[in-house]
Amino acid sequence: MNIVVWNENRHEKLNPRVAEIYPKGIHGAIADFLSYAGHTVTTATLDEPDHGLTDQVLKEADVLIWWGHLAHDEVKQEIVDKVHQRVLDGMGLIVLHSGHFSKIFKQLMGTGCDLKWREVGERERLWVIDPTHPIVSGLDSYFELEQEEMYGEHFDVPVPDELIFVSWFEGGEVFRSGVTYRRGNGKIFYFRPGHETYPTYHNENIQKVIKNAVNWVVSSKGPQHQYGQAEPLENIVKKESLS
Amino acid sequence: MNIVVWNENRHEKLNPRVAEIYPKGIHGAIADFLSYAGHTVTTATLDEPDHGLTDQVLKEADVLIWWGHLAHDEVKQEIVDKVHQRVLDGMGLIVLHSGHFSKIFKQLMGTGCDLKWREVGERERLWVIDPTHPIVSGLDSYFELEQEEMYGEHFDVPVPDELIFVSWFEGGEVFRSGVTYRRGNGKIFYFRPGHETYPTYHNENIQKVIKNAVNWVVSSKGPQHQYGQAEPLENIVKKESLS
Amino acid sequence: MNIVVWNENRHEKLNPRVAEIYPKGIHGAIADFLSYAGHTVTTATLDEPDHGLTDQVLKEADVLIWWGHLAHDEVKQEIVDKVHQRVLDGMGLIVLHSGHFSKIFKQLMGTGCDLKWREVGERERLWVIDPTHPIVSGLDSYFELEQEEMYGEHFDVPVPDELIFVSWFEGGEVFRSGVTYRRGNGKIFYFRPGHETYPTYHNENIQKVIKNAVNWVVSSKGPQHQYGQAEPLENIVKKESLS
Amino acid sequence: MNIVVWNENRHEKLNPRVAEIYPKGIHGAIADFLSYAGHTVTTATLDEPDHGLTDQVLKEADVLIWWGHLAHDEVKQEIVDKVHQRVLDGMGLIVLHSGHFSKIFKQLMGTGCDLKWREVGERERLWVIDPTHPIVSGLDSYFELEQEEMYGEHFDVPVPDELIFVSWFEGGEVFRSGVTYRRGNGKIFYFRPGHETYPTYHNENIQKVIKNAVNWVVSSKGPQHQYGQAEPLENIVKKESLS
Repeated sequence: MNIVVWNENRHEKLNPRVAEIYPKGIHGAIADFLSYAGHTVTTATLDEPDHGLTDQVLKEADVLIWWGHLAHDEVKQEIVDKVHQRVLDGMGLIVLHSGHFSKIFKQLMGTGCDLKWREVGERERLWVIDPTHPIVSGLDSYFELEQEEMYGEHFDVPVPDELIFVSWFEGGEVFRSGVTYRRGNGKIFYFRPGHETYPTYHNENIQKVIKNAVNWVVSSKGPQHQYGQAEPLENIVKKESLS
Repeated sequence: MNIVVWNENRHEKLNPRVAEIYPKGIHGAIADFLSYAGHTVTTATLDEPDHGLTDQVLKEADVLIWWGHLAHDEVKQEIVDKVHQRVLDGMGLIVLHSGHFSKIFKQLMGTGCDLKWREVGERERLWVIDPTHPIVSGLDSYFELEQEEMYGEHFDVPVPDELIFVSWFEGGEVFRSGVTYRRGNGKIFYFRPGHETYPTYHNENIQKVIKNAVNWVVSSKGPQHQYGQAEPLENIVKKESLS
Repeated sequence: MNIVVWNENRHEKLNPRVAEIYPKGIHGAIADFLSYAGHTVTTATLDEPDHGLTDQVLKEADVLIWWGHLAHDEVKQEIVDKVHQRVLDGMGLIVLHSGHFSKIFKQLMGTGCDLKWREVGERERLWVIDPTHPIVSGLDSYFELEQEEMYGEHFDVPVPDELIFVSWFEGGEVFRSGVTYRRGNGKIFYFRPGHETYPTYHNENIQKVIKNAVNWVVSSKGPQHQYGQAEPLENIVKKESLS
Repeated sequence: MNIVVWNENRHEKLNPRVAEIYPKGIHGAIADFLSYAGHTVTTATLDEPDHGLTDQVLKEADVLIWWGHLAHDEVKQEIVDKVHQRVLDGMGLIVLHSGHFSKIFKQLMGTGCDLKWREVGERERLWVIDPTHPIVSGLDSYFELEQEEMYGEHFDVPVPDELIFVSWFEGGEVFRSGVTYRRGNGKIFYFRPGHETYPTYHNENIQKVIKNAVNWVVSSKGPQHQYGQAEPLENIVKKESLS
């Protein structure tokens, strides 16, 4: 499986705390544990030409992982449209944390994708809602992140196809933290945790979820539907008003 | 309830057959039976300034009904964005037939919204899949349209929140003909039938469905959620790494 | 609308604290605010003949509300089966709190309906997840119950048709507190709060939800489907192997 | 993967036509192509002790496939309850064709599971509705069965978690032919085709679907949730009325 991990990679340059937690960037950290799991992984970042997402890169990607925050607006619409088309064609997409406000996620959802937030380093506890889902394979009933940014409901997204996690936050909120969507031939997983100033992507449970998720979002090679004008498959009785 | 019926209103000018079936336009036919049902109904068409959808009109609309086909591209993006925002704010939206390819529907869905089609005047039979839904109130198990354009699966839309009708077509296809979606505070109903060269909107069952649908898509005045930074509702224990 | 409020009515007899909060029983408290809202409301309790649910009572009920806890086992299977059939025929059903373990709810769900629980009088905060749903009409983004029994995930029910509320609990759990299901021609709403030792059913928001819910679960008179052997609606070409 | 194929195995004894099509029984035909795909497959039939479903057999089964028709009533409730519990504990279940009326399926669904039917050997065309689902891997947009029994809507089941196929029938009906459900830790796939007098289980596409389905329904080893009384995970502030 070819996985591309896309990261804005700005916090890592601006905030020494982030660079300390993720010396190779958030993309590097994610690429490492996915490579270790046996996948072919490359990374791409905002400041590369075409944001690192050339036609060739996108064509060969089975799964794209997306982390962005500060610079959603700098992502060129042309690239967003290409990513969008690739998802519709069957590329899996995993959107992480503040990627909820990325152009690509909003364009796929059709909603504002807004939410409540607070950054005081409170405890988050993710409860497994769907124990049958491959994405929760190997997890316990819940797991905790000692410090995370809070995201709270209402989360302005369409009704998820599947609701996998709900988070409890110390400050009193809840959040649909793991949700899936189908768009065209593509599968999408949004996964909430991952604020840049906490070592979330070094957490073993978080890594399990993302490793499970790449296997779930990757295409299972269903039919490529034909659209447009179609000949009838059965005889149609000619009716009077058409004569 | 304030209902705005929007119609492209081009076929009516170009094709005498359409003008004969709908002397007041498709919008006029729909407005008539909804007015008769006691609603306050106005119409708006493509060639009016702002396509008839001024800020005032949109602000006062509780429900917008949309029919378009030939000229989706002529609808200004600025107006589409305003309609989109009004749906997210709670305005109900009913998208009819070839409106599946309208900018507003595609923008709300996030998919290509394509389908198979054929125009030979074949029989369509709409089967009620969800007998509990208010939109099928007063219907029998199925109803027929003697002649309609065929739309066939695969219909490239997100998984519907609710599947209300599935159509059988004489030529061998099936179609999810009545589907609902939530987007933000707004409810959306897509209803398949309504090709311009057949008297579909004069059909009693079709009128029942649309009359039921306006009552279903209209806002039930739920909460207007606050988004953005939020103070905690509970005490949060200060943790070491934040000091 | 004819509403029947069914209550086990045992805690009220055994626990003075409950009798103090609900002098007319939980059923009486619920019947009062629904009558006040203009509905025709009767009550039925476990120790009446047929548990108060005679064929006549069930036949005339548009909506049945169910509260039980201590004595689920004492509800006769024969009556459960009649209630089940009435739901399939279109009677609305609202199951409250500990009713999650009632025979009727388990039989409609097909699952164990188990959950985590704790009774220490902790705070519950119910967040509105679906702002478009008629059941949340008139509510704010969330509301609080200062003291309630905790119910925690995993809640062993089928994936809900609609997820309306998620609860946050002081002790660290979350719960899908308001969920809907369709079964046959009937609509079902499960609503979590309502422990007998707290004045939950006197809470204004709780009353709003239940008043909204009766209007939502009541049948909208869709088709009564015919089942069994059916004549073809179209010509079928005779094929060789059948001759 | 351990697969158990359960078959009533009565038509095979009563009808020479069925015995001719399925000399080893329907169970034998299904077991053959699944064995050939590399699975460990055993069969079980109604007339064996415990219907072939001893505690040991059920304990070791990862996936159970169920075909029944004439003799649903002869299946002992005690065995049904054991199968039900195994599904809730995570065993995958595939229910075929007339199994829609089996005790186990009805008990898992909570509805009547009735439908329209007709046996005249008409054409069925199964359209893929969800191209992203692993169960349709390797299929085209649709496939045909030249002769099958008709099952028509309304199909009295809960709203499916996923709708994978919709069938078109020559006689004018449609049917949700491939649907999934979660119950407890178990996944369920209902697949419509398979009338005993047609060689449906010898059809290559039908075999593909069932081979895909066993991989989908098999447990992905998510958490085994704990239920019942639970200690708080966070400090709870003692409140006055509890003193």
